[in-house]
Amino acid sequence: MTLIVHHLHVSMSERIPWLCEELGVPYELKVYNRDRLMAPAEFKALHHSGTAPVIQDGDLTLAESGACVEYISHKHAQGKLFVPSTRPEYANFLFWWHWSNATLQSALGGAMGAYASGLREGDPRGAFAFGRSKKALSSMNDRLGHSKWLAGEAFTVADLMCVFQVSTFRYFYPIDLGEYENIVGFLKRVGEREAYQRAMAKSDPGMELALGSAPPSQPLM
Amino acid sequence: MTLIVHHLHVSMSERIPWLCEELGVPYELKVYNRDRLMAPAEFKALHHSGTAPVIQDGDLTLAESGACVEYISHKHAQGKLFVPSTRPEYANFLFWWHWSNATLQSALGGAMGAYASGLREGDPRGAFAFGRSKKALSSMNDRLGHSKWLAGEAFTVADLMCVFQVSTFRYFYPIDLGEYENIVGFLKRVGEREAYQRAMAKSDPGMELALGSAPPSQPLM
Repeated sequence: MTLIVHHLHVSMSERIPWLCEELGVPYELKVYNRDRLMAPAEFKALHHSGTAPVIQDGDLTLAESGACVEYISHKHAQGKLFVPSTRPEYANFLFWWHWSNATLQSALGGAMGAYASGLREGDPRGAFAFGRSKKALSSMNDRLGHSKWLAGEAFTVADLMCVFQVSTFRYFYPIDLGEYENIVGFLKRVGEREAYQRAMAKSDPGMELALGSAPPSQPLM
Repeated sequence: MTLIVHHLHVSMSERIPWLCEELGVPYELKVYNRDRLMAPAEFKALHHSGTAPVIQDGDLTLAESGACVEYISHKHAQGKLFVPSTRPEYANFLFWWHWSNATLQSALGGAMGAYASGLREGDPRGAFAFGRSKKALSSMNDRLGHSKWLAGEAFTVADLMCVFQVSTFRYFYPIDLGEYENIVGFLKRVGEREAYQRAMAKSDPGMELALGSAPPSQPLM
């Protein structure tokens, strides 16, 4: 039975078709347009979380992107793109893998909330949110000054998890990456991966990929 | 060399001594008082993230609670309390394990922010934040109506990761769990675990444990 990947346009569910392309795992892609800025009702009905991505594998329906990535790699590709506990880069891998959704997404989401409520950098009411966002981006930038990918010299799912926030997420919060040159270099390497190109062409055809220093020219918010 | 666990009082780093007690892994505990509400400078200096927990294992210094939990279990306890990919409850385990910091913490953190800025339930300006928080708690409550623990009938690190938000986190955001009876039952079972009792007595001695329906009687915020 073919794995089904439900993708909401312009969302973090882009990670899943990208993963399948990297792993060479066959998948059927179902794409959904946003209803104004949110997931449409038919997407929310797929899983009790109401969030993107959702995958289906036979009788199983699963949400939560970290869970979907781990499930697909371990059930369909012998754990490829994960780092085993016997490797010296194991701890680095674990840090950035968990950091993506636990810290980076939370920090940028908080800054997006401040931005959406009209606050701009320099406003003391946004100091905590914008400060946390800049600290997270600085950590990532520093790390990418020491190794090609986040866990070390090899691409892993820790990288795959951290790309959305510094690329497509800027449709919602228009971060300029001018002061984070190592992140811009990282995004350039991501854009050169054929699996990424194939996945994005299928998932969000026609969308301007935000892989440079500047945010997308036509953000959604 | 003994594992060192750096714990910030009244914080999610309580997960790490608890894990070590569950696994029977020896550890040296170092505890830090908060400086007003934040981590003190000496804690922030331990790791570039500036966040709690931090562990040290020989030359390694590691932060990010999901990473610390995964590292300790796999490097010191043969993966105990994780669910292998061959088990039928694997997908459920992955969902709740990742859900804790990616979705639950983010949802409750957003609601805490709204609460801290003076909003209360019923105020339309807090509708998104409070709604997301209630949806997350309802999902957890529904799940715990179908199985004893989140992944199934056995306690796993998915449970260990989800306890902080519905117990100690209420020192910062005073959620009443009256409408979530399955979560209250879950917290009762947590409080009966000897490993949890030992860890909390060492980590936050004298702190009123918030394991009932009501939030702590003396919240910090």
